[in-house]
Amino acid sequence: MVHAILQETRNKKPLVHAITNYVTVNDCANIILACGGSPIMADNQSEAQDIINIASSLYINMGTPNEQSIPAMISAGKYANHKGIPVILDPVGAGASAFRNNIVKDLLKEVRFSIIRGNASELKFLAGLDSQTRGVDAHTCDVVKNVHVEETRNFLQSLSAKTGAVIALSGVVDFIANPQSVYTVRNGHAMMTNMTGSGCMLGAALASFAGSFASNTP
Amino acid sequence: MVHAILQETRNKKPLVHAITNYVTVNDCANIILACGGSPIMADNQSEAQDIINIASSLYINMGTPNEQSIPAMISAGKYANHKGIPVILDPVGAGASAFRNNIVKDLLKEVRFSIIRGNASELKFLAGLDSQTRGVDAHTCDVVKNVHVEETRNFLQSLSAKTGAVIALSGVVDFIANPQSVYTVRNGHAMMTNMTGSGCMLGAALASFAGSFASNTP
Amino acid sequence: MVHAILQETRNKKPLVHAITNYVTVNDCANIILACGGSPIMADNQSEAQDIINIASSLYINMGTPNEQSIPAMISAGKYANHKGIPVILDPVGAGASAFRNNIVKDLLKEVRFSIIRGNASELKFLAGLDSQTRGVDAHTCDVVKNVHVEETRNFLQSLSAKTGAVIALSGVVDFIANPQSVYTVRNGHAMMTNMTGSGCMLGAALASFAGSFASNTP
Repeated sequence: MVHAILQETRNKKPLVHAITNYVTVNDCANIILACGGSPIMADNQSEAQDIINIASSLYINMGTPNEQSIPAMISAGKYANHKGIPVILDPVGAGASAFRNNIVKDLLKEVRFSIIRGNASELKFLAGLDSQTRGVDAHTCDVVKNVHVEETRNFLQSLSAKTGAVIALSGVVDFIANPQSVYTVRNGHAMMTNMTGSGCMLGAALASFAGSFASNTP
Repeated sequence: MVHAILQETRNKKPLVHAITNYVTVNDCANIILACGGSPIMADNQSEAQDIINIASSLYINMGTPNEQSIPAMISAGKYANHKGIPVILDPVGAGASAFRNNIVKDLLKEVRFSIIRGNASELKFLAGLDSQTRGVDAHTCDVVKNVHVEETRNFLQSLSAKTGAVIALSGVVDFIANPQSVYTVRNGHAMMTNMTGSGCMLGAALASFAGSFASNTP
Repeated sequence: MVHAILQETRNKKPLVHAITNYVTVNDCANIILACGGSPIMADNQSEAQDIINIASSLYINMGTPNEQSIPAMISAGKYANHKGIPVILDPVGAGASAFRNNIVKDLLKEVRFSIIRGNASELKFLAGLDSQTRGVDAHTCDVVKNVHVEETRNFLQSLSAKTGAVIALSGVVDFIANPQSVYTVRNGHAMMTNMTGSGCMLGAALASFAGSFASNTP
């Protein structure tokens, strides 16, 4: 199935509108290209609607949010909802500062997301649990070990029901959850944490694949 | 001739002032170094004139324009014209949004460019033709095939006459045009579109070489 | 000793708060990871204190300063001083524009630094000497040759006494100076100047190691 989705994305070459951080933006653009999409990393509110009009999906990553990009995220997100284009959220560092917590609350209030991808700490914060977000990496206390699989399934399904989004947790064990079912993937490797941006790239890849399903893809 | 220009650039080590996007800025700095130049990626209007005073060329790339970088582009561009330093424009995404269209119109009104480098869609937009810009990649309809070579030559020469700049179109076939003559280079490879930034790097490389010809190069 | 420090950093995994430029920010995040730290590249004043509260060191790099990042640098720097967390300064391009000169003067007035790392031109400017800063690379006149070792030692020790920081000069010969002693390292290679960001990465690495000594490291 993965192969078929990748093939479809390469055939359709969906335009992915990405409003992301300046740390891993180059890697995000390249992973979108590698998945078969066409990236446009446009983060100015003044062109949010024009870009959504030609895009097949929207990727919102709050790694380095600022006074320019936050209104662009809200504006592009709402307009993408209006146009029926899938919106993917990467709530980087949610839980690490009041500033980020307010941004993610505004985003969840204003925009409906198709997929939310995060690490255990970020997603726990979104679920209203007591998380230990420490910067942009999952806190040691939040890393999902085998003993936590059951409780993790439960909070991810609650979060999915609350937001209407598919929830993707990446870590030692990956989870993909909706209210009906949860898949786990035991495919992670510790080396993924040795470079920056593996999570962001996963989010951008998901936005590429989601774009290939959008009705307005050329 | 290419070898001689590269050698000259490495000998003179021109300082290249680049106001560019945050997606490919690292690659642009590295290609300037690889060409023998010394990059300074300063995008704040407050230092535009000071940096131009020590620079040998200016590279303006509107990949992710914002309220800070747009006035810096105009200010640095006008002052570079005043000082006789070559200015190279990369009109990324021109035609994709009203926001970008207005920026490029302002730039063309306020600044004289030595070289304008773009893809077929962006340059068609600049020439006032009906382009199909789709994000930052040339639209399929605009890709120059052999059958379009003649009409492409014509619009590039018109654009060169109108702007006073040498026009460089990169794509399957590359064109370099001024009002008197047009060169075509059939050296492209589809793999160039598989990574982000090949166009930006070409523009930054041209700025490095142009800098080696500037009279104020040390 | 280097091995022991590296091991200690990997054991403690200090969170390094970096307010840096968008040119080499990805490389800085990766070098922090490679040193064993956990990077967070948060440049908004609104979260400066929250991030410092969970960080073990602060890296300030003024490569592409702007209206958002400058107040974040001052705010995070002062609060890091208050919390006793080491602050590392990379005065990129000091001497190249009045804009940068004012920023670095403000930083030195408002924040106490544990380490200041720069090239010869930047550090000469900080020492109040007549420097020839040319962009972000050391000016040819300022490159430290063997004949200049004695005068370099002297100005670095004065700068260390004036600022209270350990001064690290990187170049053909590296210097590490405090008022009592100066170490020189003859380990440089011309190839280090062939790519952008080697200086920034050194500063970010120093911030990682300094973080492993901070008392609040988990």
